[in-house]
Amino acid sequence: MPPPATLSASSSFTLLSPSPSPKPKFPSFFPKRHSFAINPRHHSLHSVPSSTVRCAVIEKETPEAQRPDTFLRANSSSSSVRARFEKMIREAQDTVCAAIEAADGGATFKEDVWSRPGGGGGISRVLQDGAVWEKAGVNVSVVYGVMPPEAYRAAKGAAAADHKPGPVPFFASGISSVLHPKNPFAPTLHFNYRYFETDAPQDVPGAPRQWWFGGGTDLTPAYIFEEDVKHFHQVQKSACDKFDPTFYPRFKKWCDDYFYIKHRDERRGLGGIFFDDLNDYDQEMLLSFATECANSVVPAYIPIIEKRKDLPFTDQQKAWQQLRRGRYVEFNLVYDRGTTFGLKTGGRIESILVSLPLTARWEYDHKPEEGSEEWKLLDACINPKEWV
Amino acid sequence: MPPPATLSASSSFTLLSPSPSPKPKFPSFFPKRHSFAINPRHHSLHSVPSSTVRCAVIEKETPEAQRPDTFLRANSSSSSVRARFEKMIREAQDTVCAAIEAADGGATFKEDVWSRPGGGGGISRVLQDGAVWEKAGVNVSVVYGVMPPEAYRAAKGAAAADHKPGPVPFFASGISSVLHPKNPFAPTLHFNYRYFETDAPQDVPGAPRQWWFGGGTDLTPAYIFEEDVKHFHQVQKSACDKFDPTFYPRFKKWCDDYFYIKHRDERRGLGGIFFDDLNDYDQEMLLSFATECANSVVPAYIPIIEKRKDLPFTDQQKAWQQLRRGRYVEFNLVYDRGTTFGLKTGGRIESILVSLPLTARWEYDHKPEEGSEEWKLLDACINPKEWV
Repeated sequence: MPPPATLSASSSFTLLSPSPSPKPKFPSFFPKRHSFAINPRHHSLHSVPSSTVRCAVIEKETPEAQRPDTFLRANSSSSSVRARFEKMIREAQDTVCAAIEAADGGATFKEDVWSRPGGGGGISRVLQDGAVWEKAGVNVSVVYGVMPPEAYRAAKGAAAADHKPGPVPFFASGISSVLHPKNPFAPTLHFNYRYFETDAPQDVPGAPRQWWFGGGTDLTPAYIFEEDVKHFHQVQKSACDKFDPTFYPRFKKWCDDYFYIKHRDERRGLGGIFFDDLNDYDQEMLLSFATECANSVVPAYIPIIEKRKDLPFTDQQKAWQQLRRGRYVEFNLVYDRGTTFGLKTGGRIESILVSLPLTARWEYDHKPEEGSEEWKLLDACINPKEWV
Repeated sequence: MPPPATLSASSSFTLLSPSPSPKPKFPSFFPKRHSFAINPRHHSLHSVPSSTVRCAVIEKETPEAQRPDTFLRANSSSSSVRARFEKMIREAQDTVCAAIEAADGGATFKEDVWSRPGGGGGISRVLQDGAVWEKAGVNVSVVYGVMPPEAYRAAKGAAAADHKPGPVPFFASGISSVLHPKNPFAPTLHFNYRYFETDAPQDVPGAPRQWWFGGGTDLTPAYIFEEDVKHFHQVQKSACDKFDPTFYPRFKKWCDDYFYIKHRDERRGLGGIFFDDLNDYDQEMLLSFATECANSVVPAYIPIIEKRKDLPFTDQQKAWQQLRRGRYVEFNLVYDRGTTFGLKTGGRIESILVSLPLTARWEYDHKPEEGSEEWKLLDACINPKEWV
């Protein structure tokens, strides 16, 4: 019996992960809002005890020798938002991976393709120990599942609170990536864009179909080159400004708030943009916005890498990068919703944890000297700045 | 206003940590059982909103230039179990640190002493980047606090469930240590012994004073030398057998169950002993047992280090050790109750995270070759063995 898997509409690889573990796991802890069971057509939630209604037995994914044209079910329209979103993220995966390989100048991505008989699947690509990147993962996935009605109500307000609707089928698709370079002057990049739809609950006539977009792109350097951070944020702002002048300030703050390492009272890095559950705009506009954001990854990031990848550095500078990598690990394992829920709910571990750096470091009571370059980075992580 | 701190009667540094962060933090998540507010005499829980009754404002700890003879309050009897437990763990700290320094042959521990005006305090000792150990922390602490009555009832059954008793003062003391050597053939050791007491609730006449012991010692090698693991477990068994023949098998299994990395379906290491909430034996006997266990650390561990610390190794063997260190990080940040609660509740971060290794590594989809030495270690972490 394969394990249950959950879908977290948050910033992680979870959404993108198959679940090949041979043992069933029924986790006792689920978040109220963002944990939904993946449940292919041919399985019924009704056979699952109520205490585990938030998870469900799912079909095991199947490795595929080739990428299919689409992971959507056969009856899907190619003009649907689902189909166009899948096409967009797969093109973005190709574009980003090609740019990474070109900039790396040697290493290539290893690809794993998988599908589920009931529909859905994904493509995981990982480049490890390259010339420029120590670890780079770019994953896409398409997931069909069923969310418990409680989660549906929690997510969408009390409209259906007096009813007892059955499980709500959903569709989710996303691209997620973390890119960790070797050179301590070359920053880590994370981005993730996802689209989510529910069907209308069958037994609640008139209840609406829901959809939303989520995602973001954020930069995590070990050292601040102001021109790099300004360039990165300017590209994010330009992408946002094409759609709504309120987007950049709002999503920039959301990003600073989300990537917060509470126990350190500092952020993981220097931010970017982050948004979730976005549905209060025209759907076509938001699809275009997510596309624009995904297309902005290469122009936002690769020029910085080209400038920094070959800079000479000292052992001390490498050690400081490694300490910041430790913070990355702390954020992802302790706070990132997708990672923590994925770990608790039986996601594909290697896909989830490809976001972790190849190497990291923890020194007792390390304090950068005030005014040093390391201190400036830390200060900017503690007190988020306006870069553009 | 300093942050609340919580006490977790689990295997971690949390119990031992002062809380110097300048910001109040009222965490929204507390475990049902093991999270209790530290609340010195002169602070009243009644001024705290009920939603935060499980945490309380505490006095900030004060750095001390010298170690006091005791961290107990002035009115404490030197013949009490509290006093004798504190004496025991401080002697154990001295003994272990002296043995580590002698085996390291160069590096010395850095010591931080702290106290709280209302009583309690601790001594943190860290040795970093030595000849033999990359990071070694040995901490002791004494904590006076107040646990909410719900926690008291949850911990001790429904005896007082119909009453509405006030907050229950408690006392907790412990030693906690993680020792990470450099050589991949020299294993990491963790041990932690703690004693916990509550006062009888003031307004529930006849309700008993509670006490319990917890702790354990466990070994985490990257490579199996069977004679080492047998020796280690034999010392644990011998310590247990002096008190009760059921202890070793029971606490050995408890250890295998506790140090379980659920998302990997593997243990952190090769176990040892672990127990918690132990109070169904004579109190003096359990104090002697905890003492025996603490005194067994050096004979269980140092002979292994002496044999392995200078063995030659390859880069591949070092990389494997680093991958296993990554698992150590995963366990501590995702599962260890003390670490996770400490991080969520404002404990002293540097003390809590001194348990993390200096360096760690994550490779995508690393699979040791079947039959290799790395595979044998992994197999023993997946399928716990009987070593003695």
